[in-house]
Amino acid sequence: MTDQVIINEVGLRDGLQNQPVHVSTDDKARMAEGLVAAGVKYLEPVSFVHPKAVPQMADAVELTPRLPKGDDLHYTALVPNLKGYERARDNGYPTVGLVLSTTDTFNQRNLNMSLADAVASCKAIIAAAKRDGVQTRTYISGAFACPYDGPTPVDVTHTLTRDMLAAGSDEIAIADTIGAGNPQQMKDIMAPLIGEYGATPFFVHLHDTRGLAAAMAWAAADLGVRKFDASVGGLGGCPFAPGATGNVATEDLVYMLEACGLKTGISVEGLRAVVALASEATQRPVGGRILAWIKSQEERGRDICIS
Amino acid sequence: MTDQVIINEVGLRDGLQNQPVHVSTDDKARMAEGLVAAGVKYLEPVSFVHPKAVPQMADAVELTPRLPKGDDLHYTALVPNLKGYERARDNGYPTVGLVLSTTDTFNQRNLNMSLADAVASCKAIIAAAKRDGVQTRTYISGAFACPYDGPTPVDVTHTLTRDMLAAGSDEIAIADTIGAGNPQQMKDIMAPLIGEYGATPFFVHLHDTRGLAAAMAWAAADLGVRKFDASVGGLGGCPFAPGATGNVATEDLVYMLEACGLKTGISVEGLRAVVALASEATQRPVGGRILAWIKSQEERGRDICIS
Repeated sequence: MTDQVIINEVGLRDGLQNQPVHVSTDDKARMAEGLVAAGVKYLEPVSFVHPKAVPQMADAVELTPRLPKGDDLHYTALVPNLKGYERARDNGYPTVGLVLSTTDTFNQRNLNMSLADAVASCKAIIAAAKRDGVQTRTYISGAFACPYDGPTPVDVTHTLTRDMLAAGSDEIAIADTIGAGNPQQMKDIMAPLIGEYGATPFFVHLHDTRGLAAAMAWAAADLGVRKFDASVGGLGGCPFAPGATGNVATEDLVYMLEACGLKTGISVEGLRAVVALASEATQRPVGGRILAWIKSQEERGRDICIS
Repeated sequence: MTDQVIINEVGLRDGLQNQPVHVSTDDKARMAEGLVAAGVKYLEPVSFVHPKAVPQMADAVELTPRLPKGDDLHYTALVPNLKGYERARDNGYPTVGLVLSTTDTFNQRNLNMSLADAVASCKAIIAAAKRDGVQTRTYISGAFACPYDGPTPVDVTHTLTRDMLAAGSDEIAIADTIGAGNPQQMKDIMAPLIGEYGATPFFVHLHDTRGLAAAMAWAAADLGVRKFDASVGGLGGCPFAPGATGNVATEDLVYMLEACGLKTGISVEGLRAVVALASEATQRPVGGRILAWIKSQEERGRDICIS
């Protein structure tokens, strides 16, 4: 197992898409620069969805040329359908994220399609991307639980994953979209898949809604998963639900994985500057748990508390 | 591996010992009743330390007869030395918790003894307890890191653990006293010990200071550990350090372990009532992360946020 970890920063996309305060293209470009300065190499800054559905993503075309450039930087755009895929490709994205939810209800709400139609749509996008030389990462959304239908049977997640890999998806992101999973479920989902395909194709996408994102990330890392989505400051989640936090905070994931001896290449101090930008841009306090601890240490100076 | 988990509630002791607001014996008795009503069977309500050192524990003798009674309830008292042990025994405690820190500095600060003297003191207490028919649980304090000397080499924790088991300690609590450990370290410490002794003798004692308590608890549970300390509401830690949170919250640990298919016998809703008592008694808001989520769900009613 390698000790190198890939962290795909989704704060600009998943983190901002639900924010009630409009975030300007300028602020997004500044955040992207800060993330890259902190060592982030993988970013998902936009989705090509209808601007009426997700107004915060309406500036995808304007933002794209303003993102930091570099041969070592890897950008993904999220696409809901074939039309979105074509826009992502035409705007130069080398990787696209596809969304496939685990239930009919969730696909209807997310994509206005049945599960069967969503599967067919993903296969069509994967086929088109193969022709165009674009990489595909398929998100199995609600892999742990559906917000409408409750816990997802592990067989459903496995079947959709295998189906998408067979269709040629380069990567699969196993997504706990609503933060309702647990580490045992992570093990039940990932262990057989890793046994079958190795760890390389798999991303894990976590939300910290119920406080279990770190435990689930560890369960995945312990099985060999080395690719994670995360969102600077823990941006994301539903802004209208106090306590329903967002994606796992990039700084928390980086702190834990580095403490465990893995290498992310990302600096927590560097992320802290982006958290300050994000708090300003979204007009609400954000920030992972490790930043609260660092702040408390700074406030206390050298005094040490034994308990 | 059994799916039954023992959770030793240490909120009344570790959780309250550092609180700046005096908590009355009445409030402690009410909290103990609430904990037992929630399904808690193991409690560590007192320590027999000098009242000048820890004023919040000065009422140990008064509190003891006011605790709920029952054949299925298991009480532990923490003791710093032989004199404390004798007081615990004379007050009817069937189990005592001993404290052995991993460094000279930490033992000096905690017990006013060198490491060698602390080892000798623990052995003397264990021998006395054996004669008296009292069970012993030795806390390896700073098993992951010392607040003064930094990370603890795994060999140090292993050597002290083996030494105390050889001396006849019935149980060992591997304690991340300052919440500075990580799940890989948990694995490095626990896997060889469990290989050698099985999981039965081992407790794990966690603080959530840097947000990794759930991940560490999962790492331990995944290896077969079935005994955990926890503190209702996440009481504990240093009250003068914002962000330096206390013990892992009992409700968070119960939520995670039950979600993972283990059985704690404890109700999160029942604990919630005790959290309310604890917030009132300590005059500060306490409560684990799962309670924030439950509260947000209640505030939102049936509206569901997909993200």
